[in-house]
Amino acid sequence: MSHVIGIDFGTLSARAVIASIEDGTVVSDAVADYPHGVMAQRLDVADGRDLPPDFALQEPADYLDALRRSVRGALAGSDVDPQDIVGIGLDATSASVLVTDSRGTPLCETPGFRTNPHAYLKLWKHHGGSRQAERIVAAARERREGWLERYGGTLSAEMLLPKALETLEEAPEVYRAASEIVDAADWLTWQLTGHLVYAAGDSGYKRMYQDGRYPSREFLESVNREFGGVFEDKMRHPVVPLGSRVGGLTATWARTLGLRPGTPVAAGNIDAHVHAAAVDAVRPGQLTGVLGTSVCWIVQAERLRSVPGIFGVVDGGVAEGLWAYEGGQSSVGDTFQWFIDRSLPESYRAEARRRGISEFQLLGERASRQGIGENGLLALDWFNGNRSILVDAELTGMIVGQTLQTRPEDQYRALMEACVFGARVIIENFESHGVPVDEIRAAGGLLKEPFLMQMYADITRRPISVATVAQAGALGSAIFAAVAAGAYPTVVAAADAMGGVRERAYVPREEASRRYDRLWELYRHLYFLMGREDDVMHRLKGIQREALSESQAQAAPARTER
Amino acid sequence: MSHVIGIDFGTLSARAVIASIEDGTVVSDAVADYPHGVMAQRLDVADGRDLPPDFALQEPADYLDALRRSVRGALAGSDVDPQDIVGIGLDATSASVLVTDSRGTPLCETPGFRTNPHAYLKLWKHHGGSRQAERIVAAARERREGWLERYGGTLSAEMLLPKALETLEEAPEVYRAASEIVDAADWLTWQLTGHLVYAAGDSGYKRMYQDGRYPSREFLESVNREFGGVFEDKMRHPVVPLGSRVGGLTATWARTLGLRPGTPVAAGNIDAHVHAAAVDAVRPGQLTGVLGTSVCWIVQAERLRSVPGIFGVVDGGVAEGLWAYEGGQSSVGDTFQWFIDRSLPESYRAEARRRGISEFQLLGERASRQGIGENGLLALDWFNGNRSILVDAELTGMIVGQTLQTRPEDQYRALMEACVFGARVIIENFESHGVPVDEIRAAGGLLKEPFLMQMYADITRRPISVATVAQAGALGSAIFAAVAAGAYPTVVAAADAMGGVRERAYVPREEASRRYDRLWELYRHLYFLMGREDDVMHRLKGIQREALSESQAQAAPARTER
Repeated sequence: MSHVIGIDFGTLSARAVIASIEDGTVVSDAVADYPHGVMAQRLDVADGRDLPPDFALQEPADYLDALRRSVRGALAGSDVDPQDIVGIGLDATSASVLVTDSRGTPLCETPGFRTNPHAYLKLWKHHGGSRQAERIVAAARERREGWLERYGGTLSAEMLLPKALETLEEAPEVYRAASEIVDAADWLTWQLTGHLVYAAGDSGYKRMYQDGRYPSREFLESVNREFGGVFEDKMRHPVVPLGSRVGGLTATWARTLGLRPGTPVAAGNIDAHVHAAAVDAVRPGQLTGVLGTSVCWIVQAERLRSVPGIFGVVDGGVAEGLWAYEGGQSSVGDTFQWFIDRSLPESYRAEARRRGISEFQLLGERASRQGIGENGLLALDWFNGNRSILVDAELTGMIVGQTLQTRPEDQYRALMEACVFGARVIIENFESHGVPVDEIRAAGGLLKEPFLMQMYADITRRPISVATVAQAGALGSAIFAAVAAGAYPTVVAAADAMGGVRERAYVPREEASRRYDRLWELYRHLYFLMGREDDVMHRLKGIQREALSESQAQAAPARTER
Repeated sequence: MSHVIGIDFGTLSARAVIASIEDGTVVSDAVADYPHGVMAQRLDVADGRDLPPDFALQEPADYLDALRRSVRGALAGSDVDPQDIVGIGLDATSASVLVTDSRGTPLCETPGFRTNPHAYLKLWKHHGGSRQAERIVAAARERREGWLERYGGTLSAEMLLPKALETLEEAPEVYRAASEIVDAADWLTWQLTGHLVYAAGDSGYKRMYQDGRYPSREFLESVNREFGGVFEDKMRHPVVPLGSRVGGLTATWARTLGLRPGTPVAAGNIDAHVHAAAVDAVRPGQLTGVLGTSVCWIVQAERLRSVPGIFGVVDGGVAEGLWAYEGGQSSVGDTFQWFIDRSLPESYRAEARRRGISEFQLLGERASRQGIGENGLLALDWFNGNRSILVDAELTGMIVGQTLQTRPEDQYRALMEACVFGARVIIENFESHGVPVDEIRAAGGLLKEPFLMQMYADITRRPISVATVAQAGALGSAIFAAVAAGAYPTVVAAADAMGGVRERAYVPREEASRRYDRLWELYRHLYFLMGREDDVMHRLKGIQREALSESQAQAAPARTER
């Protein structure tokens, strides 16, 4: 029986699965971490130099290492004959960008660039190009560039262009030496096949490729004279639809992985987006929620609409023939983990240990004992900025309503509710701009929290169907592999056969929805009050930034003296 | 050598000191707790019945028990000959109110009232009369009652009148059976001497006694027909200045305490206010701060001014001849304790244990390592409502600016800063209404936190002098005892001789003040935004109240079935 391999490159590790091409059954999976993780403070792999604030770099070779180990691990853990592997698909975090020479060697591995931070992979959450993002947006508004509204009218610093412009302006020698500026996913399929193409997904969402073209040279030059040729010079390869076959596995990689040379490799995809295939949410009105450390929301529609505050809308962004809209929340599971790490008293941990349950479970259990609204709290979930619908990385978290009676489970529940209310803002924003959302299909680590999942159903007033496999990301890539292998004519057909959910695992309860509605009104009020009308969050950030740079300036001479 | 005894009745215990009449040296002190503490959930001393929300009751006999044990303890711990004790002074929490028969026996000790919550002492923080307070204020505004502006234009539920009206309306049988409605301090001096008089302090601050009279019968009847005679019928004894001699110690109490019969007993005082004498802050422009679980601010001035948002202004409220203005913050030390109890991870506790320091010290130390503004946070300190200057018990706490990088010491510091900014609001409010504040003289448990004390100096831009004894409250009462005993002609003279501070223990640092000023601007903005313009806090409280009453209603039938 034929199988495909899907590989999901996350922030800290890669996971490979082997899935049946017939019904998507996952027969084996293996995880391999990146040996050097994320470099945020220091350039650990080279001279250990301090990195500027907001940096998040990776060693590209780690991806290849994790690719090898995860695939070989998955093969070793299964009875599948490697000869029966008919396709390979992969996904990676989106807008994780690297610079290479003409043969695909990352510049950080070439002479003279080992200690240059800009020669490394800039991870999605690298925010070093914040100021560049602002200038790009200002210029696009000034020139009324039509593509800007495809990104909700603004751009995050996580996009490719701000990262590339940052490289040009902060490390021009790196920029000039770069033959290619390439997304991690496209770089990986290039490595595996020897062919460099750009998958439609990330090209549309993070590289401003819209209606068959990139932003114009004139626009780019208006931002920086030398930036005009960034696409023509450094991203001149073709954009291909998702599910396309990039090429066949090279002999070298076939040997490394223990697979047949020439095995079809599918165009690389965005890690969150492959979940839509895994949960078979490939038709209009089906909202895919990828609920993890951050949350990604994707919904498709037949028509192009102008929706403010989305992260992007791309023709064929998930599957050919439909417009795929993406919204996101930068910190959800991360916020819960923050609370547990930074605010949970020992008595709670001790109880969780004693009962052999996780702290998440304990807090969820305690929170579930309160009636809706009983804790008197309301939170804003912007612990890592607001991605949708305000698109403002400078916004921060907030909890209001504390009294001397407020307990840890009260604050935890308020944070949960805030994250779900944040989802409702995104959903209502889709709907009020003509993009219907009829049902929610969810995947991701937060599916383990039934209390939270029920809250999603109650607050959004929509049924929630949930992924049936824990490795939904890698399974999603396996589905695209099956399309590239020619086993299915379309992504929709492959997703129908290989993807799936437990239908309506959570359904809204009218009474609970009604009660949440009262809190929701307040949340929405506070959302726009603090996120748009008032500027206290921005002013606090400004004060913080100045204070930190002053204390760094004071610390610097001391450091030189050492 | 002659000595006096001062007794300070707090929320949970009484402390007695023996002090030299000459220079105030405290030679001995002893603490005795109230055996039954505060009853907030159930009427523990009787049938254990559930109490309504916002109740805070006490067993009056506990006060007498603690009086006996603390005084005998202090005597036992000193070499002072009981014959050399020439006076007794006492203070108690303000507007802690009880109902008695004509001989001073609390109604809860009389037949038929043992299980009636309203027959017990209603502690200062008993908020059962919130709705009554609102109606009293509404009626006073409607009738343009002149005394209302002496209380900043509104009244807290903690005043005597709301508590008495609550008793009338919720337990008319108790109200009708009460010969006297009396403050704890006045009840105690009544017990000790056999004479019932009302001290000027609490009479002015909490019983609406202004310009020699109480609110009129017409006004009281406009609130509730049967309430018209509350003062004439149940509070018909004289009001006497602070430092007055109420009478001599009865033979019975002399025996109980081991003191001379006839020892002068001074009029009872408000626990916070006696600190002004202890720190010798009895002249205009000297602001006394009593920094503890909550914070009380008192300043005297020669002229009467209309100051909105104060807790009260009383002629002779601290010492005869000056107008004493009081403002307050309902939760300061309590908020820090809340944070440590409910939000501090074990690693912090473990470090504090290992190093043999308190968690307060550890957090203060870590917080002190950051530059001002570096944590990016801002808090509102209303964890138990806002007493001054918004006088709104329904306001709640808030923290804004959290990110995934926010640490416990960041939040702790933000709470500290909020409490100190809250003090600055009160000070600026005094000054802008013609009541000068030149220096701050502080007493209370928070003096143990030097980092916080320096913050008070920096943020208020005023030098802080601090009490030299830990028992400043009881010492303050001892100073009034000395006046009642005739050892000094005035409170000012006694305070000059017996009270004192370490002068200018903390002085403002210009650079720090300048940096705090930027945060202060934001605090002030948020203060009025959330406290006055926006109503999200009130609406959350409303939702919470409804949710709680619904779940209690649901729980009630189940309880009956058991």
